[in-house]
Amino acid sequence: MSTQPLRQASIELSPPFHDVDSMRVVWHGNYLRYFELARCELLKGFGYDYLDMEASGYFWPIVDTRLKFVRSARYGQTIRVCASLVEWENRMKINYLITDAASGEKLTEGYTIQVAVHKDTGVMEFVSPPILGQKLGLSA
Amino acid sequence: MSTQPLRQASIELSPPFHDVDSMRVVWHGNYLRYFELARCELLKGFGYDYLDMEASGYFWPIVDTRLKFVRSARYGQTIRVCASLVEWENRMKINYLITDAASGEKLTEGYTIQVAVHKDTGVMEFVSPPILGQKLGLSA
Amino acid sequence: MSTQPLRQASIELSPPFHDVDSMRVVWHGNYLRYFELARCELLKGFGYDYLDMEASGYFWPIVDTRLKFVRSARYGQTIRVCASLVEWENRMKINYLITDAASGEKLTEGYTIQVAVHKDTGVMEFVSPPILGQKLGLSA
Amino acid sequence: MSTQPLRQASIELSPPFHDVDSMRVVWHGNYLRYFELARCELLKGFGYDYLDMEASGYFWPIVDTRLKFVRSARYGQTIRVCASLVEWENRMKINYLITDAASGEKLTEGYTIQVAVHKDTGVMEFVSPPILGQKLGLSA
Repeated sequence: MSTQPLRQASIELSPPFHDVDSMRVVWHGNYLRYFELARCELLKGFGYDYLDMEASGYFWPIVDTRLKFVRSARYGQTIRVCASLVEWENRMKINYLITDAASGEKLTEGYTIQVAVHKDTGVMEFVSPPILGQKLGLSA
Repeated sequence: MSTQPLRQASIELSPPFHDVDSMRVVWHGNYLRYFELARCELLKGFGYDYLDMEASGYFWPIVDTRLKFVRSARYGQTIRVCASLVEWENRMKINYLITDAASGEKLTEGYTIQVAVHKDTGVMEFVSPPILGQKLGLSA
Repeated sequence: MSTQPLRQASIELSPPFHDVDSMRVVWHGNYLRYFELARCELLKGFGYDYLDMEASGYFWPIVDTRLKFVRSARYGQTIRVCASLVEWENRMKINYLITDAASGEKLTEGYTIQVAVHKDTGVMEFVSPPILGQKLGLSA
Repeated sequence: MSTQPLRQASIELSPPFHDVDSMRVVWHGNYLRYFELARCELLKGFGYDYLDMEASGYFWPIVDTRLKFVRSARYGQTIRVCASLVEWENRMKINYLITDAASGEKLTEGYTIQVAVHKDTGVMEFVSPPILGQKLGLSA
């Protein structure tokens, strides 16, 4: 499984005041929101965002996620969130890198892993359904 | 329309760290979360919480809300949130009072107004459906 | 007191997936986040955002807010949030209007009222401190 | 380094409506809130919660966290969040286990790692400051 990203998307955002905690930095749990914003941008890029997933008969819940915090983001800062699809055949693994938009300095990195679950039966798929490969233009 | 509450419920909570902003007080928008916790306790008390509403064929979206902030709540404090049902015939109006649990000092007050919307048609009801009066034991 | 806005700012956003509730609409409390995003844009426009406020020796907590919900926003929709400063002499009152970006249809409206509080003493000011008028270019 | 917990604390909670997403399960990012509630209970148990940390001259930001989702929590369910302190000498590592309160079925597990940072200098400590061992009654 290559770590060369199959697809990539980036967004820029400025952390809102309500995301900053009393230590004057973004509360750590809010980075999962920023990951989601970049992930949705990535998924939209190949036509398989939340609404498309559901229309295809699958939910793709997150089953595993990790976040490593290198430097804190603060109010007034502009940050860049880059999401990279690195696995797709059995599950979707997306890597994230958050950097300061101005300096490029690394702030946070992490990943999410999602698996397909049948919308109607709730059964988890251990191989990604064909629709994902089709959307990516990677089906056999 | 009397302001004598038809039903009342109270909860106590201690604001979590992630609800506190960089001014070291609970971020104002989080009080709508606390209102909701008390509202659900109130609604459960007469068997008409979110899941019951939906089972009865209606959503009850909030169409109007107001919050007045008198004193700020802080991390480490215990607060009491009291929800009082004051209108029910055409809409549900619930008043809220948040006080410091120890001193009784008033921190925040407000209200929410909800109306019944048909789950399937999306049509808004201008009179509360009979199920609400039945649940309250107040139907004619 | 005129309702002619002294200053105005607008932002566009697409509600993130994590802001949508199980009724498939944006949870009502999240609109206070959208108000804040537009308010900060408005305040930045005349150099008096959160960090400037604090540097000037004042906090400006929200003491009163109201939201009226006309139509629900959904995932995938683009919304426009317009914030208008309508009072400044004794307190800051900002009106908000949220519309569907494509159709212009009204979704939500509301206001926030903020008052100056001395950062060090915690004393509330009943007249806005001179810095606000200076920033607005409206001082006598 | 033993995995035998040095300290443990549990809380029970019922996920609020505003934590549930449009797939009718708790949005994954909200579990970091539940982790925090249990962590604060754990820290309070030996007198070293957020306010105590700060009074001791240190912040303890989270530098690494992981969450694995086994089963989804839903509205109406009561869940139990157990936090276990498993490392303290160089950093604090806390493990979490979320179970259905009624059946004991595993829902989510994960960990957080925190390191001491000097409040005034912002310098990260590579060995936990003596205050932590003292609070735990484990100092040499």
